Amino acid sequence: MQTIAVDAMGTDLAPGPEIEGALQAAKARLARILLVGPEDRLHNELAHRGAHRLGIEVVHASEAVTMEDQGARAFRRKRDSSIRVAARLVNEGRAQGMISAGNTGAVMATAKLILGPLEGVDRPALAAVFPTAQGKAAVLVDVGANIDSKPSHLEQFAIMGEIYYRVIFGVERPRVGLLSNGEEPQKGNELTREAFKRLKQLPLNFIGNVEGRDLTNGRVDVIVTDGFTGNVALKVSEGLVEVVSSLLRQALSSTLTSQVGYVLSRKAFQNFRKRLDYSEYGGAPLLGVKGVCIICHGGSNANAIKNAIRVAAEFSEGLVNEKIERELAGVAAGLSKS
Amino acid sequence: MQTIAVDAMGTDLAPGPEIEGALQAAKARLARILLVGPEDRLHNELAHRGAHRLGIEVVHASEAVTMEDQGARAFRRKRDSSIRVAARLVNEGRAQGMISAGNTGAVMATAKLILGPLEGVDRPALAAVFPTAQGKAAVLVDVGANIDSKPSHLEQFAIMGEIYYRVIFGVERPRVGLLSNGEEPQKGNELTREAFKRLKQLPLNFIGNVEGRDLTNGRVDVIVTDGFTGNVALKVSEGLVEVVSSLLRQALSSTLTSQVGYVLSRKAFQNFRKRLDYSEYGGAPLLGVKGVCIICHGGSNANAIKNAIRVAAEFSEGLVNEKIERELAGVAAGLSKS
Repeated sequence: MQTIAVDAMGTDLAPGPEIEGALQAAKARLARILLVGPEDRLHNELAHRGAHRLGIEVVHASEAVTMEDQGARAFRRKRDSSIRVAARLVNEGRAQGMISAGNTGAVMATAKLILGPLEGVDRPALAAVFPTAQGKAAVLVDVGANIDSKPSHLEQFAIMGEIYYRVIFGVERPRVGLLSNGEEPQKGNELTREAFKRLKQLPLNFIGNVEGRDLTNGRVDVIVTDGFTGNVALKVSEGLVEVVSSLLRQALSSTLTSQVGYVLSRKAFQNFRKRLDYSEYGGAPLLGVKGVCIICHGGSNANAIKNAIRVAAEFSEGLVNEKIERELAGVAAGLSKS
Repeated sequence: MQTIAVDAMGTDLAPGPEIEGALQAAKARLARILLVGPEDRLHNELAHRGAHRLGIEVVHASEAVTMEDQGARAFRRKRDSSIRVAARLVNEGRAQGMISAGNTGAVMATAKLILGPLEGVDRPALAAVFPTAQGKAAVLVDVGANIDSKPSHLEQFAIMGEIYYRVIFGVERPRVGLLSNGEEPQKGNELTREAFKRLKQLPLNFIGNVEGRDLTNGRVDVIVTDGFTGNVALKVSEGLVEVVSSLLRQALSSTLTSQVGYVLSRKAFQNFRKRLDYSEYGGAPLLGVKGVCIICHGGSNANAIKNAIRVAAEFSEGLVNEKIERELAGVAAGLSKS
């Protein structure tokens, strides 16, 4: 069984969701767990819950990174932060992967520096996983690890994202698309027009340019973009889901009749919301670093933490990193799988 | 009263929505209207509807651009297209503005070539107008007229978008933000970091970098971005609204109880959908060309066409173009309003 280091101090309600999620994951025998954070507090919270018997161990970290900390600065200043201790456990081989719902910038900076890039990877990339209309998942890469990207970076994002999708979602030939302002091959900006030529050469199921609307309609599995555009696209989606939910709530509570209507259709609404729920997909993997690093939303609940632990274990068992290194070496040598 | 040329052959259901919208606009005395398209057909459809008395005149155009036509090619090949005839009417001074729900690329190419840019404008830009959580409108500029933009272009987009918002929405100091991957001034890619410095110098209510989630939460009125990112952001939003609506419909029709619930809360749903309805805002203005050019969605209904006619008339009456030329001249001369 894989061992996963869980930063216990990341979520907005830490360490509650982390502890619950770790207990659920351990009970389901998804992984052995090293829970990283203030020893005394974690021991207290875990008391009488059979944590040790379940394979959960506490590893002490005296500091926690906050949302106000700057990524790289947090890394330098808080040498005993729960993020950094978790990364160190992976680096030392005591865990195969880490998960954290903490400050994304700090987790990325720490993972890049402590774990280091895989052989052949120029820039690790953050991949967001989200549900689509068909109830399947799509992966958008990069969503913010690399703001100014080159065509060769997008090429690596495509390779890493495709392998991730293949291993985690068990799809043999995931459809890979390049995010652009139109579907025709000549569409795009300087960066994507150049990247298009490179993606066409890769031994992937490249379906060409895709548009913003394709993110959620299920037409494509892996969407490749630079970190700036990807970050904007992801946050536009998150913001819109929030606004739509709040408008819907307002509308349904506006009159007595509509409230009664809401009560009758409550189960339908719960199904609807579940379809939009990101937490089933367990966080965003930082692709291209040694070991495994999954970054969760600060608002993650226990279920999201449990799923992130599951994904981290599957990532390691599925040899995602080994496959990435092999494929990049092949591309570098001008080879193609065919 | 202003005269507006209406391309009658643009919507998916043309010329129905165009004719209805023109009649509604004329009845509300929003403008005099030149309806452009196949003369015989339009006269037939308008028969007995008192069009002439209402101030609607038909102008013949023998061709129509389809969605399959390429923008610039459509311009060259279809010299008597309804889009091109409408633009010519503006160019000749017979109309103050034009609206079209046709092929966006073809309308943009035609307007740029026939109308020409305003004095001082390097690149006309397409501005999308959409509703936010507060029930107010926000403007995103550029959404696809300029794929590879320079910092100086973004500066002009900000100036043009701000004046448009001021005139059409009657807000004295609209909040202008630069779309980026974080709020801090140092965030952004090469393009936006340079543009940030320029926007800071302008005599505008510049609130700094904004994120994708701010598009719809009402924090900002005018959002400045390059045409590539803007196109992705707009299409991500449109796609997501479609997916959410379809998931909601599926959920509510799944059981008898939820169907009864839906019937009871139907009015609430109608209000909800109305809040998300883009058609109240009447299309996307192409900012920076001589005359007025408003581009509507291909799926526009009569209400959207009517509102686009209203906006085109207000655009002309409000002297948007004169203000843009004056402001750009001021910036070029290194002057500031303060």
